[in-house]
Amino acid sequence: MSRLRVHAFTLTLDGFGAGTDQRADAPFGDGVDELHAWMVPSFARRRSGAELDHRDSEGSGVDHAAFLAGEENIGATIMGRNMFGPVRGAWPDEGWRGWWGEDPPYHHDVFVMTHHARASLPMDGGTTFHFVEGSPAEVLASATKAADGKDVRLGGGVATVRAFLAEGLVDELHLVVAPILAGAGERLFEGLDALPAGYRVESLVPGESGAVHVQVVRR
Amino acid sequence: MSRLRVHAFTLTLDGFGAGTDQRADAPFGDGVDELHAWMVPSFARRRSGAELDHRDSEGSGVDHAAFLAGEENIGATIMGRNMFGPVRGAWPDEGWRGWWGEDPPYHHDVFVMTHHARASLPMDGGTTFHFVEGSPAEVLASATKAADGKDVRLGGGVATVRAFLAEGLVDELHLVVAPILAGAGERLFEGLDALPAGYRVESLVPGESGAVHVQVVRR
Repeated sequence: MSRLRVHAFTLTLDGFGAGTDQRADAPFGDGVDELHAWMVPSFARRRSGAELDHRDSEGSGVDHAAFLAGEENIGATIMGRNMFGPVRGAWPDEGWRGWWGEDPPYHHDVFVMTHHARASLPMDGGTTFHFVEGSPAEVLASATKAADGKDVRLGGGVATVRAFLAEGLVDELHLVVAPILAGAGERLFEGLDALPAGYRVESLVPGESGAVHVQVVRR
Repeated sequence: MSRLRVHAFTLTLDGFGAGTDQRADAPFGDGVDELHAWMVPSFARRRSGAELDHRDSEGSGVDHAAFLAGEENIGATIMGRNMFGPVRGAWPDEGWRGWWGEDPPYHHDVFVMTHHARASLPMDGGTTFHFVEGSPAEVLASATKAADGKDVRLGGGVATVRAFLAEGLVDELHLVVAPILAGAGERLFEGLDALPAGYRVESLVPGESGAVHVQVVRR
């Protein structure tokens, strides 16, 4: 059965998944420059073509294995509009084509949640962005169909993950707690009073970067 | 020079240092029963008289070492009133003598912050509770004097630690992130926008209990 999975969603120690003033030249906002430092070696490996090694020769690789796990058996992706781009309100034109260049690292259908209609946007490498309005459950139904038996990955931003968690739609939540403080920004765990009834923390495991990987699963 | 240290201050994964509805039969409130599970073996060791072993024979002992570190070189303690007891408002009488019985585990002067005057309360074993009104800096000055060259430990509750952090008075903050979700309660990191300017996360280290120990230090 197709599952909805969140992977590599990174929070500061003080609980923020994004800083203040998110914008084109600071997609995650201010105060969180080091938020994704744990992923940097994985991106470097990917560029060097070594991305299939889950563990490196020194026996480390918790961070990298977690990074790769987020790509296994994923057939579609859901994201909030802010994870697609910095444009707010109605689309002025179709000039903005996502943060990831012409060959985005998805290679499948990506459902961008927005109240502003726009034609689907096919990119190189098999990624197509679909701009969809609807409840989390409705968007999940579309993405599940597109995933064709594989799982659906839920990307950010913070508000999007929170909305799916609030409705109990997430099957598996991999968080990373980064060793930084932001002071302010967007909190993941806000207004999720009912979360403990449906979910429990399965494990907290340190990565070699100094961040900690957290697995939250259904009870 | 005397330092102000917080030790063993435990948060849920979702950031709560206490649950909802704190009261006499639930000092930390609801939803956080397992918050201090990481300390349980340390209390058991203490009862068995083995509290001086920082590491046990299996080489584990991160949790226990962290527990003990909070008692090293401490000459006085500061706490908020809720950490002394469940009584709110004016003291009805002097019947409530703290959560810890007649021989509290402090053995030095303890400064309980409250707007309600009460005579100092000497207990067995060298602990004396003083009930003090004043700003965090003023209370710290009194406690530092009482500590006589040793450090001062800042206990809870959440609001008390937050108040001292907000004024930059804490020198060292040892937090523990417990593998539980509370959903609601009192957040430590709330309204501490300026924190990253003065503090940084030094390390995240897992204990054998499944909790993670976090060291926050001055920049």
